[in-house]
Amino acid sequence: MAHAILLISCPDRRGITAAVTHFVFTHNGNIVHADQHIDDQRNTFFMRIEWDLEGFALSRQEIFAEFSGIAGTFEMDWRLFFDDEVPNVAIFVSRHVHCLQDLLLRQQAGHLRCRIPLIVSNHQDLREIVENHGIEFAYFPITPETKLKQEQQEIALLRKHDIGLIVLARYHQILSPGFVQQFNERIINIHHSFLPAFPGKQPYARAYEKGVKIIGATSHYVTAELDEGPIIEQDTVRVSHRDTVDDFMRQGEDLEKVVLSRAVRLALEHKILCYQNKTVVFD
Amino acid sequence: MAHAILLISCPDRRGITAAVTHFVFTHNGNIVHADQHIDDQRNTFFMRIEWDLEGFALSRQEIFAEFSGIAGTFEMDWRLFFDDEVPNVAIFVSRHVHCLQDLLLRQQAGHLRCRIPLIVSNHQDLREIVENHGIEFAYFPITPETKLKQEQQEIALLRKHDIGLIVLARYHQILSPGFVQQFNERIINIHHSFLPAFPGKQPYARAYEKGVKIIGATSHYVTAELDEGPIIEQDTVRVSHRDTVDDFMRQGEDLEKVVLSRAVRLALEHKILCYQNKTVVFD
Amino acid sequence: MAHAILLISCPDRRGITAAVTHFVFTHNGNIVHADQHIDDQRNTFFMRIEWDLEGFALSRQEIFAEFSGIAGTFEMDWRLFFDDEVPNVAIFVSRHVHCLQDLLLRQQAGHLRCRIPLIVSNHQDLREIVENHGIEFAYFPITPETKLKQEQQEIALLRKHDIGLIVLARYHQILSPGFVQQFNERIINIHHSFLPAFPGKQPYARAYEKGVKIIGATSHYVTAELDEGPIIEQDTVRVSHRDTVDDFMRQGEDLEKVVLSRAVRLALEHKILCYQNKTVVFD
Amino acid sequence: MAHAILLISCPDRRGITAAVTHFVFTHNGNIVHADQHIDDQRNTFFMRIEWDLEGFALSRQEIFAEFSGIAGTFEMDWRLFFDDEVPNVAIFVSRHVHCLQDLLLRQQAGHLRCRIPLIVSNHQDLREIVENHGIEFAYFPITPETKLKQEQQEIALLRKHDIGLIVLARYHQILSPGFVQQFNERIINIHHSFLPAFPGKQPYARAYEKGVKIIGATSHYVTAELDEGPIIEQDTVRVSHRDTVDDFMRQGEDLEKVVLSRAVRLALEHKILCYQNKTVVFD
Repeated sequence: MAHAILLISCPDRRGITAAVTHFVFTHNGNIVHADQHIDDQRNTFFMRIEWDLEGFALSRQEIFAEFSGIAGTFEMDWRLFFDDEVPNVAIFVSRHVHCLQDLLLRQQAGHLRCRIPLIVSNHQDLREIVENHGIEFAYFPITPETKLKQEQQEIALLRKHDIGLIVLARYHQILSPGFVQQFNERIINIHHSFLPAFPGKQPYARAYEKGVKIIGATSHYVTAELDEGPIIEQDTVRVSHRDTVDDFMRQGEDLEKVVLSRAVRLALEHKILCYQNKTVVFD
Repeated sequence: MAHAILLISCPDRRGITAAVTHFVFTHNGNIVHADQHIDDQRNTFFMRIEWDLEGFALSRQEIFAEFSGIAGTFEMDWRLFFDDEVPNVAIFVSRHVHCLQDLLLRQQAGHLRCRIPLIVSNHQDLREIVENHGIEFAYFPITPETKLKQEQQEIALLRKHDIGLIVLARYHQILSPGFVQQFNERIINIHHSFLPAFPGKQPYARAYEKGVKIIGATSHYVTAELDEGPIIEQDTVRVSHRDTVDDFMRQGEDLEKVVLSRAVRLALEHKILCYQNKTVVFD
Repeated sequence: MAHAILLISCPDRRGITAAVTHFVFTHNGNIVHADQHIDDQRNTFFMRIEWDLEGFALSRQEIFAEFSGIAGTFEMDWRLFFDDEVPNVAIFVSRHVHCLQDLLLRQQAGHLRCRIPLIVSNHQDLREIVENHGIEFAYFPITPETKLKQEQQEIALLRKHDIGLIVLARYHQILSPGFVQQFNERIINIHHSFLPAFPGKQPYARAYEKGVKIIGATSHYVTAELDEGPIIEQDTVRVSHRDTVDDFMRQGEDLEKVVLSRAVRLALEHKILCYQNKTVVFD
Repeated sequence: MAHAILLISCPDRRGITAAVTHFVFTHNGNIVHADQHIDDQRNTFFMRIEWDLEGFALSRQEIFAEFSGIAGTFEMDWRLFFDDEVPNVAIFVSRHVHCLQDLLLRQQAGHLRCRIPLIVSNHQDLREIVENHGIEFAYFPITPETKLKQEQQEIALLRKHDIGLIVLARYHQILSPGFVQQFNERIINIHHSFLPAFPGKQPYARAYEKGVKIIGATSHYVTAELDEGPIIEQDTVRVSHRDTVDDFMRQGEDLEKVVLSRAVRLALEHKILCYQNKTVVFD
């Protein structure tokens, strides 16, 4: 049976958890996961609650309607999902293939609950690989002059495919603020450094020049500020003076794949809440 | 203000979370942490809930009385703690000083909410260090013949100090089943290997002989079976062919200190539930 | 230009390094890497030395002949490789595809210096994926009765393809001692646990039952003893009570891929020396 | 018996290793460790070689004299050490005690080959702890006006104690360029972030604000640029949205202790070579 998932944030006060769990219980729901967090500094309450819909007394539409009352009382920001409503994901790539391949293989293995109907690229390099997977490959070359116009076409295509999540899998173009705004908290990027170290271009070469002993990768939601959006997941690996920039890149690929796929999985399972340019991750 | 902490496990069914959170809310409690877990295979529900007692309508004794009703309804195993009731901890040691020193320094720094009134040892080596900290050092040499009798004396001393948690900080004696039984889920050991690899004696030497590329440390509750109790925390560090057994020991000390102190801290904050010889750790 | 690589082990005594480096220098070689290790307990010396053949005074055949004298003096076990002589690798698989796919993609990306002309399997499941890569898929179903006979066929096929390294990428059959003997130190396995914990079958399920807080993967050379050969590489990842056996498997796949591919890469770059059922890894 | 240790860097060319190892062998030395590295981009050769002085034909003074010839031929920067010449270390602290205590305990346990005759501080807080260890505690309060004068006094005291290595164990004062210059590559700092992220003040608070999922610590040689010197060692640990700034600090302390003590140990064992504001670490 399908599960319902509620993501909630609101000012903290007495009775929120009791009200939410009582709502589920009253209508005969069986809670299978519940997690909450309170940010004391900001006096903000966060919750993720998931319940089995088998025998639940309300229809999906009724849940929206009924829960609105509770949400209003507590001034909640809230979103409701059903885990059998599988979203469509678009992956944006440039020339690097490793993250793309990794995501496609994980999706085929059933580790990512989504469809991937569309790959967008500003280069032609990966067309064949994509089409061999039976996926539409949309080529949008970008110049400073054509960017906004091309993005309008991309957005139209994304709308046509009803895309719920965009994954930038080493897409080496900065999206315009207008594009980002239309997909707020729905664009995930992988940056090949341990942010906030080495934002922007050539992070491996700069890490090498700096002589770091550990390299990292960071997945984050995309905001208007380059590489400054809320961090979802990070990981690191040791390097040494023996490693060249090429070794950094090669070892970094493994990090990038793992970090990006974890972030995408968390997003698809509705386990991430953003606030204050940070994330609460209920994993 | 003090917080109340409830640890609950029971057969899973509808309404547990609603009932518990409703109990807290009804009596004007403000939940500051709540975490739950359901083991699908065993159909078992686990919960840790912590609320602020400021303005709470029930006295501590009344909480026990009132909650018993709910607990009975759901067939709960439950324990209730108050975070201002700081337990007394006894540390058992042999000759290795690093874990002992580490725990004492952390307690002094305020990172472990406990008193440490008593150190027990089967050797005299660490007496001076302990007494320099102003702590009672109790020497109980153990032979196979004297073991049970000595343990009776130890138990009497532990009772006298009202010891709520025993930490075996590289104590190289096996406690008798009778001793263990009297402190069920209240004895934490550090084993200097990545269990279940290398239980028993000389784990570093055996790891060296085996040629492992990573060594570990494991903290666990002590049960009648040597090194077989529920695992609380583990960590690992890379080694190489260049490392000798002495290097394993030296690097292992850092692991042991971190892993043991994390486990003790989790226990003192009532974040651990045992079942099926495993732990649920609400960290 | 090509490089020559010497792997040496011998009883330790004065002058070995001087003799070897003098040999390279005298014939006008430029050392690009040199690493050595002495096992004090066993009084054994190990060395890996790599030099540029540009301008080297000896032909490849002459190197063999000339170095024999030094090798004899110091009672060396030694092997000589040239990095432009790319070996043929065969991968053995059963039904799990992730390690196979990972190795193929890495080889295509140029991260593994080898050819992969042959995949052997005791199941038909992965035939299509293999053949889509343009690689021969050899199906050898195994029963206790047919095992030795099938292995003879496999060996014939491996010889035909001049296979220098066999990689067991989740191949769920135990090779007979006779097979292993023919490919001594040339068969690498991935075991999906942190050995020596959980050798043999179902390591993830057993790790779950045990309640470990960290899972691992181990790559090792195959010997006649199951999961007991010299360990080449290991890695670990944290798990929690929230993770099911399926979660262990899914997260374990990432470990297996990284650990196995690192081991294969080290072997292909001639960076591993075995002794005493352990490895010296000059990475 | 004592060991000699040579640290060498020079332009790369044929014959360096052969010349150095031949030097040791000719005078009847037994090499116990040798490691080398070539930076292809900079065409620079680095070497660390350690040999047993038992039966060595040259006195210590003669080694200096004899080796000078080889060093001249290859334009080497070189330093010669003897592992029985144990250096004096001064530790600079402010108010945080954890790194200081950790270093003192490691030195007492024999894990750091040095004497620690002097602790310098700009605060009085740690006087008692230091003096309880029987170590001189020198108090130098610093204001912008007094800084240079106080540093002159510090330098005089350091000279008096023949200090070979200065460790800044959470010393919250910036040393003047003149001070740093006098102890070039002999001042090690611990910075409580994963540099180059969060240099300067309050790194934990800034990491918290940024919402990172991993925090780190970095030990480096001190140069005139704040937190910009050659990195010796780094390590990281995972954090989550549940961790407060205090949790970052507490968990960070464990990182700081391990990272700083590793760096100090590497320096004391003469395993670090600096170049291009980076380090080669022969561990």
